[in-house]
Amino acid sequence: MRAPAQGSTRQSSSALGVAAIGYAFMGKAHSNAWRNAASFFDVPAIEQKVLVGRDARQVTEAAAKYGWAEAATDWREVIARDDIDIVDICTPGWMHAEIAIAALEAGKHVLVEKPLANTLAEAEAMAAAARAARERGVHSMIGFNYRRVPALALAKELIAEGRLGTVRHVRAAYQQDWLSDARSPMTWRLTKDTAGSGALGDIASHAIDQVLFLLGGSVTEVSGRLHTFVTSRPGTNGPEDVTVDDAAWVTLTHGSGAIASVEASRMATGQKNSLKLEVYGDKGALLFDLEELNELAFLDATLPVRERGFSRVLVTEPEHPYMNAWWPQGHIIGWEHTFTHEIRDFLTAIGNGTEPSPSFDDGLSVQRILAAVEESSAAKSSLIQLAGP
Amino acid sequence: MRAPAQGSTRQSSSALGVAAIGYAFMGKAHSNAWRNAASFFDVPAIEQKVLVGRDARQVTEAAAKYGWAEAATDWREVIARDDIDIVDICTPGWMHAEIAIAALEAGKHVLVEKPLANTLAEAEAMAAAARAARERGVHSMIGFNYRRVPALALAKELIAEGRLGTVRHVRAAYQQDWLSDARSPMTWRLTKDTAGSGALGDIASHAIDQVLFLLGGSVTEVSGRLHTFVTSRPGTNGPEDVTVDDAAWVTLTHGSGAIASVEASRMATGQKNSLKLEVYGDKGALLFDLEELNELAFLDATLPVRERGFSRVLVTEPEHPYMNAWWPQGHIIGWEHTFTHEIRDFLTAIGNGTEPSPSFDDGLSVQRILAAVEESSAAKSSLIQLAGP
Amino acid sequence: MRAPAQGSTRQSSSALGVAAIGYAFMGKAHSNAWRNAASFFDVPAIEQKVLVGRDARQVTEAAAKYGWAEAATDWREVIARDDIDIVDICTPGWMHAEIAIAALEAGKHVLVEKPLANTLAEAEAMAAAARAARERGVHSMIGFNYRRVPALALAKELIAEGRLGTVRHVRAAYQQDWLSDARSPMTWRLTKDTAGSGALGDIASHAIDQVLFLLGGSVTEVSGRLHTFVTSRPGTNGPEDVTVDDAAWVTLTHGSGAIASVEASRMATGQKNSLKLEVYGDKGALLFDLEELNELAFLDATLPVRERGFSRVLVTEPEHPYMNAWWPQGHIIGWEHTFTHEIRDFLTAIGNGTEPSPSFDDGLSVQRILAAVEESSAAKSSLIQLAGP
Amino acid sequence: MRAPAQGSTRQSSSALGVAAIGYAFMGKAHSNAWRNAASFFDVPAIEQKVLVGRDARQVTEAAAKYGWAEAATDWREVIARDDIDIVDICTPGWMHAEIAIAALEAGKHVLVEKPLANTLAEAEAMAAAARAARERGVHSMIGFNYRRVPALALAKELIAEGRLGTVRHVRAAYQQDWLSDARSPMTWRLTKDTAGSGALGDIASHAIDQVLFLLGGSVTEVSGRLHTFVTSRPGTNGPEDVTVDDAAWVTLTHGSGAIASVEASRMATGQKNSLKLEVYGDKGALLFDLEELNELAFLDATLPVRERGFSRVLVTEPEHPYMNAWWPQGHIIGWEHTFTHEIRDFLTAIGNGTEPSPSFDDGLSVQRILAAVEESSAAKSSLIQLAGP
Repeated sequence: MRAPAQGSTRQSSSALGVAAIGYAFMGKAHSNAWRNAASFFDVPAIEQKVLVGRDARQVTEAAAKYGWAEAATDWREVIARDDIDIVDICTPGWMHAEIAIAALEAGKHVLVEKPLANTLAEAEAMAAAARAARERGVHSMIGFNYRRVPALALAKELIAEGRLGTVRHVRAAYQQDWLSDARSPMTWRLTKDTAGSGALGDIASHAIDQVLFLLGGSVTEVSGRLHTFVTSRPGTNGPEDVTVDDAAWVTLTHGSGAIASVEASRMATGQKNSLKLEVYGDKGALLFDLEELNELAFLDATLPVRERGFSRVLVTEPEHPYMNAWWPQGHIIGWEHTFTHEIRDFLTAIGNGTEPSPSFDDGLSVQRILAAVEESSAAKSSLIQLAGP
Repeated sequence: MRAPAQGSTRQSSSALGVAAIGYAFMGKAHSNAWRNAASFFDVPAIEQKVLVGRDARQVTEAAAKYGWAEAATDWREVIARDDIDIVDICTPGWMHAEIAIAALEAGKHVLVEKPLANTLAEAEAMAAAARAARERGVHSMIGFNYRRVPALALAKELIAEGRLGTVRHVRAAYQQDWLSDARSPMTWRLTKDTAGSGALGDIASHAIDQVLFLLGGSVTEVSGRLHTFVTSRPGTNGPEDVTVDDAAWVTLTHGSGAIASVEASRMATGQKNSLKLEVYGDKGALLFDLEELNELAFLDATLPVRERGFSRVLVTEPEHPYMNAWWPQGHIIGWEHTFTHEIRDFLTAIGNGTEPSPSFDDGLSVQRILAAVEESSAAKSSLIQLAGP
Repeated sequence: MRAPAQGSTRQSSSALGVAAIGYAFMGKAHSNAWRNAASFFDVPAIEQKVLVGRDARQVTEAAAKYGWAEAATDWREVIARDDIDIVDICTPGWMHAEIAIAALEAGKHVLVEKPLANTLAEAEAMAAAARAARERGVHSMIGFNYRRVPALALAKELIAEGRLGTVRHVRAAYQQDWLSDARSPMTWRLTKDTAGSGALGDIASHAIDQVLFLLGGSVTEVSGRLHTFVTSRPGTNGPEDVTVDDAAWVTLTHGSGAIASVEASRMATGQKNSLKLEVYGDKGALLFDLEELNELAFLDATLPVRERGFSRVLVTEPEHPYMNAWWPQGHIIGWEHTFTHEIRDFLTAIGNGTEPSPSFDDGLSVQRILAAVEESSAAKSSLIQLAGP
Repeated sequence: MRAPAQGSTRQSSSALGVAAIGYAFMGKAHSNAWRNAASFFDVPAIEQKVLVGRDARQVTEAAAKYGWAEAATDWREVIARDDIDIVDICTPGWMHAEIAIAALEAGKHVLVEKPLANTLAEAEAMAAAARAARERGVHSMIGFNYRRVPALALAKELIAEGRLGTVRHVRAAYQQDWLSDARSPMTWRLTKDTAGSGALGDIASHAIDQVLFLLGGSVTEVSGRLHTFVTSRPGTNGPEDVTVDDAAWVTLTHGSGAIASVEASRMATGQKNSLKLEVYGDKGALLFDLEELNELAFLDATLPVRERGFSRVLVTEPEHPYMNAWWPQGHIIGWEHTFTHEIRDFLTAIGNGTEPSPSFDDGLSVQRILAAVEESSAAKSSLIQLAGP
């Protein structure tokens, strides 16, 4: 007896054809999610049609390795193909706007990695394109994958249910240390032209998005500070200038009156990929660390004082967001599955004809905050007012 | 440009054909590993040919979902097929011996889930069959997947390098709580006929295997105790007797003189899937907990007292076992990838014509200890001597 | 305005006169408690009359340093004095019985350090003397000071209130590493004649007492194993034999049907003074570690699964046992205050004319278990039945 | 044989006479330290002469309880006494300046609780008085007691030895939750007139002092933000205005180029007394939390990547600052002993005729930063330059 195709995803003529652009870190992570989503979740059928990259040999190898039927080097040709329904953009940020807008105009659903773009102008153009496309039933989403960490999805549920009462403040930090060694070489991530910004756009953006995700609403004020500790690094032909920040410090006023502090660093020696979140309300509080992403610490301040404390909830129960699809309780999942959940939610929204979340407008909100941080930093950390949404 | 097949694994005529038997928890976990190993590791090409199960409808669905080309209900027919090179046995323990021996005799490489068998006699027959098969170039492995947790592979390296000095004692526990509620229903796992034993074979076996894995060598003496806290549970037609242990307590004498204590329970309320290991030597010590499997705590007792302490090593660096294949530092992997690593090692050994490890003989060593625990428990915990290997 | 004497303790003619025997580790710790109890708790007034030790110069220095009015070298003379009401025995175990029995017969209230004695016969004689003294209004207590850790007192409350439901099993360990180095010199603690036993009496006794304290009731069965890893150590005149255990492994059957495992070691490299307790019931569970003695982890299994986890309760609230006397919430106390609490409870009982707890009979219960462990260890770990209380 | 007086401290005619002013929280904590310092450390002899407070009955009771020979209500009379050598000021901040300056002028050594004063002007006057007194051999110290946490003293040693290399940034937070409940009543701590500021002066000051303590040097730039979440609280006669901050967010530029972020809150639900410090250098890093004050996490980035991680050092070894005086390794000390260490260091400096540290000038440095935070907060968080020292 021959099995129907995997999750009805591979050979079905009605399957959605997917093209991914970029085969490096994010391309590998997204590919993994496309390859596995249907093995765990009930999602519309897809086919991994084509992986796009600039280096023909490398992209061909990557395509074979990551489960794509074909490789290609010209993204414009690919988004013009009739058999492509979805374009997944995993390129560096400076390419986002051009590809995303073209793909949306070509009627393709678009998933784009965060941050939305390297500049506010690009981000605004992308959001406008997404709004226009939505009118034609074409969907788009920005890949703030940490919204799909089960523990953070649970955190959002608890806050939305009022379990924290009025949230007063948030303390967030995204700490890495891969630039701690001053002899680490120059990369495209350290040049403003290609990366837009440093720790700010790359990792603080995740923390800022979490503030918006967890609390909803919008940010009204921003104070920021950016600093580059190592201003020159070894390049291919001698020292090159680092033109982005190594670290960022931000305070945000939320529309609700809550205040959030956000710190981001690529120089936090010993911290590898630690997005720490602390949320304090008048009825409860939450703690989270991405390095132990299967755990959420929850304090219910309505319990008797005698037994009150932060509970380490291992977020691996069938009752927890996304976890029913995986393994029995206590069997932890990995970082990569935040993308599997992202693809699951993206496909589900497409299947239902609803708008996926977070939208390009959500990405734009983050982008405006990032721009305000840069503006504030240039103005001696002075508070910047943000226009209403 | 059409990409070569994924990891050269799917269509290649020289690819190894794989059949998996069993589509429940372990079948799902193994399928995931077969589907993904070639996307991360350089391994001999395979094809996921056929998934075997008793219920035709369910196995067909599972095959489609988990990436198998076909489904089948008769394992005998499948192991007779010429296009099947590898048989992966994910059934309950009472079926292991018959299938594994038949598959080995049919010239198939065999991977079997732990514990090796439900009885010592079966385990001995399997080990004999594996030894005989090896002569013919047919390989076999038992799936103690926790040997492939990167943190535990690192632990083994450190011990082997002498970083702990002389290991004096090990304290191990495997704690779960899924039977904590006395109203939880009867399952095949709670009957001696189908499961062999309870917490002993299911989870204490993992802890015991770790003692052998980490310390090498063999066990010479065993004292054990088994207990069933809830002796009757709701069955389909009223209460049914639980005929296996809910919890086990064991001390082992290792050939080196080290002593290990092992505790296992399915009643440890609040512990979900916690395999805790503590290893104490005269030069260092190690701590591990499976619920945080990306971490290893290492204490180097040769450091100055002033700065000595257990270091929480986040085992996600390229320098760590298996981790070079995954994501940048700090991006944690999940429980399931212990199987991806297992398949990687199994395939690599087959490709190299070397014997995979752990072997059926390793499985038999664990089985002999499990049998001695039962014997000791029946004899008021009295120490049982084990024959030399 | 002249202040009344400290806590009415120092000059009052009605104050209870205290003599302490022993000025080493335990003498220092007890002295601290005698000196400070009245500054935090409302207790009957005491005077620190005399500190007794064998070395005249050293005891005189210690007396001055630790707040005692006098020093003395002959304990017999001291217990004969009319101005002494309380005798606090901080000597090595082999001296306990003689002093305690003499003091009780002299009509002095007696506090004795644990374990009660080095042999079961001595312990039985002491318990008989205490029972006889009680008839005459003379009180006695054994110093299992960890019963006065606020977190453990809270643990007992929670268990007594049924918050754990039926306790099924306990996992306990007392781990130290001060003998990890094989070159550590010989001491009186390593000779059977002076110390009675090694890790067993010194530290496993604490863990065993906690089982009795937390669960109440008695122990009916014991299996034990003792081991000496380093059998000879440098003495003053060359190598000397170590005649006590370095480590102990025990399982206990409690009268309630619960099973406890206890492990103790002075070779657990990296563990400094770690008494770990885990208590698992069908409605909840508790975790504790003496190295973080201000914390108790409590899991309430009646909470919804979604938010269930071990809560880290910082046991520093006014609502917590003993803590109202100390500092505001979050300001932790130290190990030494377990003795301050012990003295507080001892004095309060004397003041009220009630029997302090734990009694010499409680100490005897532990002693019987220790003896059974030794008996079982000698009998290849075979289960030993304990007579009813 | 009669013992010499305790630590030669109580009756010796050459003993230093101590007066403490204030018998509430800080008075109790300081008294405990005065009472016990000589039992653990070799320090110049002292006598606890007199405790001063406004309420005659209460101060008399407190004096008796806390070990003071006398009680008094008029601090001016007390500092005029010839038998008083040391004045310890434990009053609210608004009284510090007047008492400290008068005591210094009267030739008494002065210890004053932090923060130095409620206003910068007062702080400057106090520092000037201290400088003048120093010329006459009269010593003064400000009680930033957390400089005497052994783990933080160890942290300073490690930084000073270069074990962290160049420190790049510090992340600090002092979090409490005692004002989390909006119904908590008004106190003197919530009014600007009596308290000076709220979380800023009370707790952020500790974190800021730690930056100066750990890194040495001075701060050159400050950006700050203050916020009051609950602006009115129940007073004795109806609602009263809260005129101080509930929370503060600060970034500091250190003279070395390092940047520190400091967050303080009395609304961090579930955090009881958590001063968290993170220090990141290019060769190592440190983590600390006051709720587990016996621990320091140290990461040595010069170790091989494979075994690198934060080591949990239990700072209870004889090799650790202050700890040789206490108990064997692993026996933790409490929060209160930070004061015992403070008194020890103060007395030792007096005995040696050296200047105790931290000085009033150190207190003034903190005060200038606090004032700059308030100035920056009023100026929309704009960076404020600090004049050189």
